[in-house]
Amino acid sequence: MTNLEDLRANGWQLTQAISPDELEAVLRAIGAQRYHNNHPFHERMRSGALSKGAMQAWALNRYLYQSRIPMKDAALMARMVDTDLRREWRHRIEDHDGVEGDDGGIERWLKLAEGLGLDRDYVIAESGALPATHFAVDAYIRYVSDQSLLAAIASSLTELFAPTIIADRVSNVLANYDYVSKNSLAYFDKRMTQAPRDSGFALQYCRDNAVECRDQQEVIDALLFKTGMLWAMLDALDYCYVSDVGAPPPGCFVPDPA
Amino acid sequence: MTNLEDLRANGWQLTQAISPDELEAVLRAIGAQRYHNNHPFHERMRSGALSKGAMQAWALNRYLYQSRIPMKDAALMARMVDTDLRREWRHRIEDHDGVEGDDGGIERWLKLAEGLGLDRDYVIAESGALPATHFAVDAYIRYVSDQSLLAAIASSLTELFAPTIIADRVSNVLANYDYVSKNSLAYFDKRMTQAPRDSGFALQYCRDNAVECRDQQEVIDALLFKTGMLWAMLDALDYCYVSDVGAPPPGCFVPDPA
Repeated sequence: MTNLEDLRANGWQLTQAISPDELEAVLRAIGAQRYHNNHPFHERMRSGALSKGAMQAWALNRYLYQSRIPMKDAALMARMVDTDLRREWRHRIEDHDGVEGDDGGIERWLKLAEGLGLDRDYVIAESGALPATHFAVDAYIRYVSDQSLLAAIASSLTELFAPTIIADRVSNVLANYDYVSKNSLAYFDKRMTQAPRDSGFALQYCRDNAVECRDQQEVIDALLFKTGMLWAMLDALDYCYVSDVGAPPPGCFVPDPA
Repeated sequence: MTNLEDLRANGWQLTQAISPDELEAVLRAIGAQRYHNNHPFHERMRSGALSKGAMQAWALNRYLYQSRIPMKDAALMARMVDTDLRREWRHRIEDHDGVEGDDGGIERWLKLAEGLGLDRDYVIAESGALPATHFAVDAYIRYVSDQSLLAAIASSLTELFAPTIIADRVSNVLANYDYVSKNSLAYFDKRMTQAPRDSGFALQYCRDNAVECRDQQEVIDALLFKTGMLWAMLDALDYCYVSDVGAPPPGCFVPDPA
């Protein structure tokens, strides 16, 4: 059995092929180490320490990420020759863009942003988002276009860890910010069922298709890339909207004075 | 009013912006000149002159095109920031990949290939398709990824001319090839309603969004690219499976001796 401590110390670099169960254990250990629920910005959010301006900056920048998810999934589908795989993946786009009778996750995120007092059109215009956010989400779309299909699919595996952060975030945000309503957090309710279904499929795909050491390393590297990308988004927010040393770059969203 | 004859003689190069109605007239004139219903291979098909082997080669190679259409549409959706535009475009993928209760166009094309006596798995494996077909369909996917979104959308405008060729092809093929059944041509029945809906949307999009001369030229060039790409596929088939001078390249589908 692979020693997870050794692997972690080694920057998650495999030296030989491991079993599917071991691979899953490695992926979950990476999540425990690097998923953005460990970021100080998330800790500040859940404990009630963020200003309303910082909460708005988070919703505004995260909108950019949300809005690019269906484009990312379309870029992935553009590489899938297998019809059944495309049909399975298609519901991710439906979840975000909506279907008959459901406006979809992007619309729910806009409701969240509006609930925090942001102007809907300003959010959609994207002009107030940080350049760092643009670079991060653009890198994600490029990643799923340029890397192997296996790596592209594996980069979605952060969804494995989403339910934990969501449950924690929703309860604490509702308890600690009196201007946030349960209704405006409807986005997260849906993700509690969507994320496990999606990540379950992607995990099984990686277990089935990453058998050689090289392929397993691709899966691991994809998760490292993705956790790093989510982390970088919170770094930028924390620097520009929370810390005393940073400030919003010219042209980016500036909160109203408290 | 633009003189269509002059434009045609000039290789469809605009010298100034034209009205939406004029643009549509130009697009339809390009279709009349260059759509692949004008290709000798199509004329041979409709008149009953093709061997069964040539019909099989057509179905086999065209499968590659069919199988790449949802990938092409996903590549296009990967570039659409607008949720409503993605939702509109999404049904093209559903038409080909299928939805609950409908197997989709790719499956119907496989039925057509099987109806012509081809082995389903051999068709799906793509190993028998001509390199020229691979190059053409790959160029199409690259086109919608690399050109402007307007040009990418405009490249779908060949659907404007599909109903004519389909109606003509179905009736004549049924009349002239006794081994082809109405049932095996079910693919085309669906396209008779799907193509006009899709091309209607794309045409309106181009009318609305191509106002400057430069944008209108992009739309025109996209249709020239696409008609050229469809034409090239039939050139390759005609050379390798019909003409006396050509033959299937090594490794490609070889019909059974008649």
